[in-house]
Amino acid sequence: MKLYSYWRSSTAYRLRIALNIKQVTYDIIPVHLVKDGGEQFSPWYTELNPQQRVPVLDTGKSCLIQSMAILEWLDETYSEPPLLPVDHLSRAQVRAMMQLIGCDIHPLNNIRVLKYLSEQLQVDDSAKQTWYQHWVIDGFRAFETLLKRHSGQYCWHDQLTLADVTLIPQVYNARRFQVELTEFPNVTKIYNHCMQHAAFKNASPDAQPDAI
Amino acid sequence: MKLYSYWRSSTAYRLRIALNIKQVTYDIIPVHLVKDGGEQFSPWYTELNPQQRVPVLDTGKSCLIQSMAILEWLDETYSEPPLLPVDHLSRAQVRAMMQLIGCDIHPLNNIRVLKYLSEQLQVDDSAKQTWYQHWVIDGFRAFETLLKRHSGQYCWHDQLTLADVTLIPQVYNARRFQVELTEFPNVTKIYNHCMQHAAFKNASPDAQPDAI
Repeated sequence: MKLYSYWRSSTAYRLRIALNIKQVTYDIIPVHLVKDGGEQFSPWYTELNPQQRVPVLDTGKSCLIQSMAILEWLDETYSEPPLLPVDHLSRAQVRAMMQLIGCDIHPLNNIRVLKYLSEQLQVDDSAKQTWYQHWVIDGFRAFETLLKRHSGQYCWHDQLTLADVTLIPQVYNARRFQVELTEFPNVTKIYNHCMQHAAFKNASPDAQPDAI
Repeated sequence: MKLYSYWRSSTAYRLRIALNIKQVTYDIIPVHLVKDGGEQFSPWYTELNPQQRVPVLDTGKSCLIQSMAILEWLDETYSEPPLLPVDHLSRAQVRAMMQLIGCDIHPLNNIRVLKYLSEQLQVDDSAKQTWYQHWVIDGFRAFETLLKRHSGQYCWHDQLTLADVTLIPQVYNARRFQVELTEFPNVTKIYNHCMQHAAFKNASPDAQPDAI
């Protein structure tokens, strides 16, 4: 199994966590998103992922793209420990938490969007920082409400799920961009709890071979 | 089953299609996203969905949010016809197509983002239109490449899947915002094919009770 990854990519970070939890062995192939205009735009990488971004998981049989689709594949294929609850309504609630982050926070703060803001719309660094923080805070407010309803030690009661796998990299991003987290006590509590696990610690950006 | 919907919302449109395909009976509760500043911001609706947006599916037991999570729930709960392939790798490919649209096109062009662009960043209508078209074209280019690899009558060979359910509302949006689709012959072919089905036709914005 090969994971095409970039140390700071929060979507690759999701996969590193899940692979570690499932105890799947994998090699990291670093793809440098900044150097020489971005390795992800090279023809060989575009063949792997027409969307020209990380992560890609090469399973040996197929190259998979889109991190949440890959998380579902991992959970279907490596059953232990399960990262979704059993009953359908609970699964839907956990997936909703995952997608709140994966659809409504992360894509707005992606590198390509920040680039568009500065290059096409002449948005300055301070307004870009405000943009970044706005979507994190907007999303985390709703997420915190869901946590009040459903959380225990983890996002979904006391079960580690794909919601935690998605939340932790987003908290990493939030801290990196100086989002004030005191408004989100449940988010913070779950982050601190997860970061005690080796699976999460070993997946963190600073622990990656390509970290600068 | 009650679907909180807005006729032009492409995420509610996804659910209307899937519910029709699964032949699940549902009542539409229109939520007016524009009138009086937006009904989705009212306290009663915020209780249903802390993210203050459509759709919400009230199953009778639970109120579900996040359209792709709800699509998965529908497919798990109403097995016929299945909207995901059986084998894990194929499921991952179909989910990747769905998420390419659900994560990397739609959230960037959402009403709240367009509002932020004009109100906070003073982006004018013409630059906003360019922004809108940019993310559709960028996403559709990658989607078209995936269709060259995998499509038949539908996005995934000849099986109707969640990829089609997600694509068709995005094409509706693209046309509404004057995106030139000649560059995407497979997208167009699948759109035309799907729009022959009653399940898709009856779900379309213009067929909704709250259409203006």
